[in-house]
Amino acid sequence: LASKLPNVGTTIFTRMSQLAADVGAINLSQGFPDFDGPQELREAVARHVMEGRNQYSPMTGLPSLRQQVAAKIARSYGVQRDADSEITITPGATEAIFCAVQALIRPGDEAIVLDPCYDSYEPSVELAGGRCVHVPLALPDFAVDWQRLSDAISPRTRLIFLNSPHNPSGALLTRADLDKLAELIRGRDIHVISDEVYEHLIYDGARHASVLAHDELYQRAFVVSSFGKTYHVTGWKTGYVVAPPALTAELRKIHQYVNFCGVTPLQFALADFMAAHPEHVEELPAFYQARRDLFCDLLAGSRFTFTRAPGTYFQLADYSAIRPDLDDVAMAEWLTREHGVAAIPVSVFYQSAPEDMRLVRFCFAKREETLRQAAEKLCAV
Amino acid sequence: LASKLPNVGTTIFTRMSQLAADVGAINLSQGFPDFDGPQELREAVARHVMEGRNQYSPMTGLPSLRQQVAAKIARSYGVQRDADSEITITPGATEAIFCAVQALIRPGDEAIVLDPCYDSYEPSVELAGGRCVHVPLALPDFAVDWQRLSDAISPRTRLIFLNSPHNPSGALLTRADLDKLAELIRGRDIHVISDEVYEHLIYDGARHASVLAHDELYQRAFVVSSFGKTYHVTGWKTGYVVAPPALTAELRKIHQYVNFCGVTPLQFALADFMAAHPEHVEELPAFYQARRDLFCDLLAGSRFTFTRAPGTYFQLADYSAIRPDLDDVAMAEWLTREHGVAAIPVSVFYQSAPEDMRLVRFCFAKREETLRQAAEKLCAV
Ligand SMILES: CSCCC(=O)C(=O)O
Ligand SMILES: CSCCC(=O)C(=O)O
Repeated sequence: LASKLPNVGTTIFTRMSQLAADVGAINLSQGFPDFDGPQELREAVARHVMEGRNQYSPMTGLPSLRQQVAAKIARSYGVQRDADSEITITPGATEAIFCAVQALIRPGDEAIVLDPCYDSYEPSVELAGGRCVHVPLALPDFAVDWQRLSDAISPRTRLIFLNSPHNPSGALLTRADLDKLAELIRGRDIHVISDEVYEHLIYDGARHASVLAHDELYQRAFVVSSFGKTYHVTGWKTGYVVAPPALTAELRKIHQYVNFCGVTPLQFALADFMAAHPEHVEELPAFYQARRDLFCDLLAGSRFTFTRAPGTYFQLADYSAIRPDLDDVAMAEWLTREHGVAAIPVSVFYQSAPEDMRLVRFCFAKREETLRQAAEKLCAV
Repeated sequence: LASKLPNVGTTIFTRMSQLAADVGAINLSQGFPDFDGPQELREAVARHVMEGRNQYSPMTGLPSLRQQVAAKIARSYGVQRDADSEITITPGATEAIFCAVQALIRPGDEAIVLDPCYDSYEPSVELAGGRCVHVPLALPDFAVDWQRLSDAISPRTRLIFLNSPHNPSGALLTRADLDKLAELIRGRDIHVISDEVYEHLIYDGARHASVLAHDELYQRAFVVSSFGKTYHVTGWKTGYVVAPPALTAELRKIHQYVNFCGVTPLQFALADFMAAHPEHVEELPAFYQARRDLFCDLLAGSRFTFTRAPGTYFQLADYSAIRPDLDDVAMAEWLTREHGVAAIPVSVFYQSAPEDMRLVRFCFAKREETLRQAAEKLCAV
């Protein structure tokens, strides 16, 4: 069987988590918390499973959960998005992105990705018969280089991926960025997939500039988010996608045959918890900023250099002062094997990374003691 | 946005379940039980959710669950399939089918489906740029017409879908059928997706002829099954796919970017339950045959005609003696609205159904009292 994805191997997240387990390293690689979701949320799952909410849910997602998402969007961004015609629950943000890409891309179409970017975007485009055009973000701040982005647009461009807060850098797009993008694609047949799974993980008092709240851009957009990231339950694989009704209708046609529907008892539990605890998302920035600051304060005693991540639960660190001879893949392995802390190399998020890039990514969605132990090991490097 | 699936509407399962709810009819349409999964299985979910099994599982599925599947396959069919290289856990059988299709089909390729067939096959093929060639099963028994199947094979044929036990008819493929198919595709570049989600729902002492146990055919096959069907929890959306290592490798590359991984606490619970209760699958035939026979015995007092389903939890019934003037879509609606029992029309499983087909499908995965109430209403028709 000839491969549809000849260049794809096992993702770096799987490989580094596996290596960490094999050598007994502290795993700051793959992005997931080492603490649990809220007890009340987990109790709600137990209750719904025992009370018999175990058969198919509606293909579009449980109505009460879609309503809670609409209410959260209204509170967070001050806009009304319709629970029935604009919000779809999906088995994870990855599936939402995949289905949106299948709705948008035909053979020969081009999609623009801003490197570094999450590893599912390009294979999703390739499986639809399209091709990715890679535009690097400008270093050191991972800001959009508008001239390069504009130059990359061709008559075949059908899609631009956004991701803010940005994995792996934590960088944020501003409202001005969204305005520029809206201007750039105005009058063109180009859509947007906005990956906002870290929407509530944003620090130092910044506000998230969501595409949901940008009326012009939203008309062309699929906005993707994740309950797993927001409620500390990445293994529940439940996310959602918000798009104008006509786009939602096309996405659902595809979702209907890719997966049909999400997991019923998890949706009931999330709806209960969101109704009872609207404050959860408002408390997240402080919750995660404390972890970022603890980790960064401790890491200040090391030979890594960094600027604090403005968002996400990832912290980049430059290791030029430590092992400039190692590329970042070798460095991540060396850190894991020799120093007992697993990290993710940043070059794997690029089509072609700058030769002299010396960055690794640490996940700080960890308990205080985990972060202390990891930082101690990293300070000894 | 031009549609990628212009002919697709909301599935018949969603529409009929919705209509049943709207008019308060007994819902024998969409295939799901109105009773719950085993208490011990549900308790295991509650335990794992409370004990913190809530982060990502491996992309290929939890190793212990894959091992339980391998053990079940060995017990059921007497063959060894490797948990690591041949078994992948997926968020439902539908996603497994979708990913297998994406691995096999390129633009211009043809896939053969045997009509009537499940509604996700064709859109999955179309999204990969392929085209379905429809070969009707021979009536009245829904047997494979080997001459027509053989005639339908072209140099572009890359895939043949099998489905046994067969939805909607309940028909079973025999070992001789599998031999014939193996012979037909020998030396040709044709693969098989074998949808065996009802593998354990098989009656009157018959044995399931699984592609898993047919060594020659298995070399070209993706065999798909479903925990939802086997453990009465369709809303958990957890399934699996078994294929030789080279095929599994290609499927996983796609699954990795379509969804990444299944739901962690459900996988832990299923592994526990399967280890503790290997007898569950052996008891299923008697469990469901009692329901089939109860429903059919009662329905014998009606003007519907039928032969008992050899497998699945669906019973077809011919209504020619009742309303020959109505096509089956109209009949299903009429039954739902006027007689309070929702059914699924069979013609929707066809590209072009025989003009004179007068069949509806009832799901008998229901409590005894539900089946009695439904049968009473159907006898009054
Ligand atoms: C789905 S595994 C990857 C988790 C993640 O988003 C990351 O580590 O970047
Ligand atoms: C995924 S909804 C359809 C359930 C089913 O398999 C059927 O009713 O045929």
